Order: sequence, then structure tokens, then C-alpha cells
Amino acid sequence: MTSWVSRLFPRNACTLATSSKNQGHEDCHRQHKAYGYFLPIQTRWQDNDQYGHVNNVVYYSYFDTIINHYLIRYCGLKTSLLTSPMVGFMVTNQCTYHSPIGFPQIPVAALAVEKVGHSSVHYRLALFPPKHTEELPSVDDRDLCDGFFFGHPKLAQFDALACTTGSSVHVFVNPTTSKPAGLPENFRRGLLKLMSPASV
Amino acid sequence: MTSWVSRLFPRNACTLATSSKNQGHEDCHRQHKAYGYFLPIQTRWQDNDQYGHVNNVVYYSYFDTIINHYLIRYCGLKTSLLTSPMVGFMVTNQCTYHSPIGFPQIPVAALAVEKVGHSSVHYRLALFPPKHTEELPSVDDRDLCDGFFFGHPKLAQFDALACTTGSSVHVFVNPTTSKPAGLPENFRRGLLKLMSPASV
Amino acid sequence: MTSWVSRLFPRNACTLATSSKNQGHEDCHRQHKAYGYFLPIQTRWQDNDQYGHVNNVVYYSYFDTIINHYLIRYCGLKTSLLTSPMVGFMVTNQCTYHSPIGFPQIPVAALAVEKVGHSSVHYRLALFPPKHTEELPSVDDRDLCDGFFFGHPKLAQFDALACTTGSSVHVFVNPTTSKPAGLPENFRRGLLKLMSPASV
Amino acid sequence: MTSWVSRLFPRNACTLATSSKNQGHEDCHRQHKAYGYFLPIQTRWQDNDQYGHVNNVVYYSYFDTIINHYLIRYCGLKTSLLTSPMVGFMVTNQCTYHSPIGFPQIPVAALAVEKVGHSSVHYRLALFPPKHTEELPSVDDRDLCDGFFFGHPKLAQFDALACTTGSSVHVFVNPTTSKPAGLPENFRRGLLKLMSPASV
Repeated sequence: MTSWVSRLFPRNACTLATSSKNQGHEDCHRQHKAYGYFLPIQTRWQDNDQYGHVNNVVYYSYFDTIINHYLIRYCGLKTSLLTSPMVGFMVTNQCTYHSPIGFPQIPVAALAVEKVGHSSVHYRLALFPPKHTEELPSVDDRDLCDGFFFGHPKLAQFDALACTTGSSVHVFVNPTTSKPAGLPENFRRGLLKLMSPASV
Repeated sequence: MTSWVSRLFPRNACTLATSSKNQGHEDCHRQHKAYGYFLPIQTRWQDNDQYGHVNNVVYYSYFDTIINHYLIRYCGLKTSLLTSPMVGFMVTNQCTYHSPIGFPQIPVAALAVEKVGHSSVHYRLALFPPKHTEELPSVDDRDLCDGFFFGHPKLAQFDALACTTGSSVHVFVNPTTSKPAGLPENFRRGLLKLMSPASV
Repeated sequence: MTSWVSRLFPRNACTLATSSKNQGHEDCHRQHKAYGYFLPIQTRWQDNDQYGHVNNVVYYSYFDTIINHYLIRYCGLKTSLLTSPMVGFMVTNQCTYHSPIGFPQIPVAALAVEKVGHSSVHYRLALFPPKHTEELPSVDDRDLCDGFFFGHPKLAQFDALACTTGSSVHVFVNPTTSKPAGLPENFRRGLLKLMSPASV
Repeated sequence: MTSWVSRLFPRNACTLATSSKNQGHEDCHRQHKAYGYFLPIQTRWQDNDQYGHVNNVVYYSYFDTIINHYLIRYCGLKTSLLTSPMVGFMVTNQCTYHSPIGFPQIPVAALAVEKVGHSSVHYRLALFPPKHTEELPSVDDRDLCDGFFFGHPKLAQFDALACTTGSSVHVFVNPTTSKPAGLPENFRRGLLKLMSPASV
């Protein structure tokens, strides 16, 4: 399906969504190579709204899921309020919806890290739909647990162009004092692996 | 973790939950062999509530998902309101929560068909948590797309005892007249494959 | 709209849903007088699923909301994991859907307490749709904050017959030990106000 | 509670969130006078996530709700896929979270229209928490059904500064052809009532 954005806003939708970034950057952000980590997403019956597609709200829960999954699995985040020295709060996030998807499709979410501050992390996110071939995408051994990284052959099963792109900013605070928490070294190292290459 | 039900209601919790069914049946419904079809479930960050476990409401969306996934994939259900000759409405459903799970665990949902009427279907459902071994459950090639059936070696990666059991009843109606729709033969055939054996 | 249950299962739907309870009890549970506390529910766009009605899963979040609202407002429940001496876990719940509702309708949820144990509470629940008159139901001053009790004139704005009925059981445990927590006296007192009269 | 944004990103958070808009505009968008229409929002138990506050995803469902509520109630939108000549799809949206809220608080959502195109509408949105006084906000007669407009005394019960601000763009398409649908005159008129004054 053609992009809502390009069809309806031929000139200014991307500038609308990406503000001061130029169209070239936006196009780049719709490609696999702009992301380092990928996690297949299982859609749910309830995700579709009255118009038969995944509701815009639900994409944010996909993106929350890939972020927290990566932080827990690869950066050592502990999420229990009772024991964790830091918890993440979302400061801002945004999405642009290029084309719809719906249950029971299995898209893949994509994550890049744009900036790691003292207590904050800037992410870029995307969702790639499965290819419209007769072959359904095969979700590989351990894919849901581990996800996979850029370069994995699995990516060939998904569209080359993202159906949704977004970004968000997390800040980490001490749950008892609510003050910003400096990010520990191993946590920071896990995030730096997803820093986008200079060309993006 | 011990079952809330058995710990807190040593004598009457199961009768509470299963009404006239006896304890033997309840125990049986917590085992793999009581189910024919299995689908791994990807939990989401948002599924956990303030107490740090998957909220009771969310289990119903897992069960909605395995049911509709099976109906679309194996029984030929079309779900578009604009073109489908029949749509399914839930008449009743219930769950019993034996022990909690939480994001990012990957449990497996299980489905059995208890009765197929003229326009209604009675389901039994369960959720099995991953085993507490060092090995995470590996979600196999195509598992999210196809699910798998009883007897598959994959089941060994999940607990032998369900953490949640439930049941529900679907009725299918014509979306324009709202009158009950007789179930087509191929649809009925797909459901009969999941009829529980007589012993259950 | 006619009840799915009575239309499709003229003889056995309610026994199906209510198990050993008789039809008389079921009918009784669909009336205002079976409940002590009422809270208007604001439906959301996202509550409607692909078939254009509130998805069955969402009713459980309405019922979770009236229960926790009552416990916080009238029984002194503290819900912070960090400071609360007890937290409630759902052991079992069930719903029967008699007729559909949809956004932007504003129904009223209803709550009764059937039994208060040492550390558990048994609830009965219902949802009453707004009357199909030209007048929209007027949600009164403070209704969302305080709810209202049986006998309030506001109830006349809602249908006499519930569109959904259900029940659930909460157990309260100490969040650090996970052991059952005896219910404090003021908490118990708040609950006893909603015990259904003997005739129900 | 102090703003996460201003505390953690003293210089650049708002530029981050608002891109080319200046800080003055951002501050303006946090005030009542920047909005024309207001709808109280009933939070739900399930809205709170593991960290005890409303999850960022859920704010988008609040904003979806005030938008669709206004379109149905004041612009004549029909939302049935089977009969409606046009349906709205979200093209892009974003939120900035200044401070957290949580169940059972009752905030008020706010809506402004920034631009009405041939088949698209640009909205600005905000959420104002209840004032921290002993008096709970009283949600007035008919407030949930009708909402209220700027200038209503009810607004005094909510904080002067928004806890969340956002924006979104809807495009309306013909549900059978998926082509952009020109907005009908009465629909357009309803939207123009919420156009922000020139000074904003």
C-alpha cells in the first residue's frame, strides 16, 4: 500500500513529521541499515481498531516493548520497583505512520540509539511489515527471546521500507528520590552498540 | 511459585472456579495433553500492571489472540467487516489464575475445542510459563505464524502445569442481519481437530 | 438489542455461564437492586474492536477499575508497591455478555460484595448501558470521583437490565513475603457495606 | 512535581520536542487558553504500568478519545465501517511528558485545531491534572457526554499548566477506495470552532 504520508502530503508530510530534518534523512530512517537491533512483534486481535488496522496507540506499545526488551536482555536493566536502583520514564516520543498493518501480521520492530547522555537515552524506532510473498516470514529459533542484529539474513523476509518510523527519549531516575540517575557503565556499553553509524 | 488458588483456598478454590466440575477435571485442564493447539505469546512492557505482573485483563487478550489466530490460519475465517459473511462475538468467558507471569517472559497459550454447535463454539484455554531453567525457551522457526500441535517437542520447554486456565464461548452471526450464522463445513472441520479426547 | 445469550442459547446459556446457579439468580443479577455501588465508565475509541463494539477483554478493565476505585476511595487501600502493606491479586473472574455496547456510549458499572474472607473478597459485577432516549445520561457532579450508591436517582438514566454480568475473587498478600494478608478492620468495614441483601 | 523536561533538559528538551518552535510557544501550549475544547478523562487501574504511573502509550488513547468524541458529538462523524463515507487515519502524532499522573486521578484533556486541509486536520492536545487541593475535582453534570469549552468555570479545578502536551494529524479517506475524502461542510465548521486564536 502506498504511503499515506507521501500520497496525501507529497511535499510537506515528512518535514511535518521530522521537523527540521530533511527528506533524505527521513527516507534513510525507513531502511533496515538505519537500525542495529530487531525484534519480531506478535500482533494481537485487540490491536486492530474499528477501522480494521492496528490502532496508532498500539505502535507505541510495540516500541516500548523492543526498548525494554533490549535494556533487560542486553544492558542489564532490572525493572522491579522494589529492588531496582533506577527506572526509565519517557520524556517525549513521536511516530509517523506511512502505511497500515493489521492482526495477524507479524512485523519486525527496529531500534537505534542516537545519543546517550548522563541519565538519558535518545532512540530511533521503526516497524517493517512482512513481505507480501506467499511465504510467510519465518520467525527463527530464539528470535523472540534474543531478537537479532543488523546483517542477519532474517531481515530479507521483511519489507525494505518501514511502515512506521518514530523516536523517543528515556530518562532514568532513582525510584525513591525521583532524581536523575547516572547510567552505569555496562548499561551504557549495551546502548552504544546501537549507535547509528555516522552516515545515517 | 506455588499456586495462589491452592495455597489460599486449599479446599474450595477449584470448585469456586470450576463450579460443578470436580478437582480431577481441573487438574487435568492444567496439563499439556488437554489441549490440541499451542501458540507462543510475546508479552509486552505494558502488560505488567502496578504490581509488576501481567494484569488479569491482559490474559483475555492472549486467549482472544490464539483463538482468532487459529480460526484465521486453520479454519478460513475472514475478519473484515466489509466482506466477511460471519463475525464472532464472545458470549461468556472465565479465567483462573494459578500463578503470576510477567514481561519479558514468553509463555505458550493452549487451545482445545469442547463443543461445536450450529453457530457457536465452546473453547478451553490455558497458558503455560517457560521452564525455570538457564536455557530460555527457544521459539522455533515459524512458531509465531503456524503455532504447533500437541506432541511437538517444543512443548518440553514449557512448564508441565498451566499458570492460567480458562474457557470461553463464541457465537458467529451475520454482520448485517446480526442473526446466528451456521458454521461452514471447512470451518467446522478445522475446529473438530481440536476436540478434546473423551478422557479429558 | 436482544440478548445474545437468551437468543442463541434459549435454555442453557445462563446455566452455562452461571453453572450451578439457577436462572432466577441470573435474572436477579442483571438488575440494579443486586448492586450497592455504581461508577460511570468512560469508554475510549480504542475499546472498540474490529467488529465495532467494545472488545470482551476491555470489560475486565472496567471491572478492575470500579473495584480498585471503591477500595481506594472507601476502604483506604494504598496501591504503591513501595509503601503498601498489602496488594490484591485476582484469583478468578468471569463475564457473560448479554448485549454489546460501543464507544462513545457511557455505561455505568455496578459492584456488590458476596463474601469477605480472611484475606479474600468475592465480588459480583455488572454493566448497565445508557437508556435509549433522546436525553443522554447526565453524569452528575462528582460522579466520576465518588460514584454513587443504590437508591440514587441517577440510576434511572440507565437500562434496568445489565448488558454484561460478571464475578471475580481478589486475594490480598504482603508484597514482600507474598503471603496472604489479613484484611484490616476499616478495609473490611468498607466492603461489608456492599454485601448483597439476603434475598439476592 | 517539577517537569522532567525542564529539570533534565534545562536548555534543549523543548526544542527537542517542539523542534523549530521556540520555547515561548511551548510554554503557551501548556496553558488552558491554547485550547478550545475540554473532556475529563477517567483513568483506569490498567493504565498504570510497573512504575506506578500512567504508561506513556495510554496518553495517546486519551487523545484519540477526545478527538473522536469531539468529531462524533460536534462534527457529525459516523464511525461505522459499513455505512460511513469517510474514516480517519492517523498520519503522525507526538507527546511530551512534563510530569506523571496515575490512576485514580481524573485529569482533563484539551483539544485545539491548528489547520483544516482538504482531507486532513492538524490537532494540538494537552492533559491538565487535577489541582492538589483537598477538594477533588467535581466532574459536572453532563461533562463526560458534552465536554466543555474554554471559559467554563470548571477549568479552575485543574492545574494551570499541562502535564502532557502533544499534536497529531488525521487524514480522512473513503473506506472502500482508500482515497482521500474531502471534508464535508458541517464537519469542517465543527473543526473551525477550535482553531486557535492568532496569538497562540
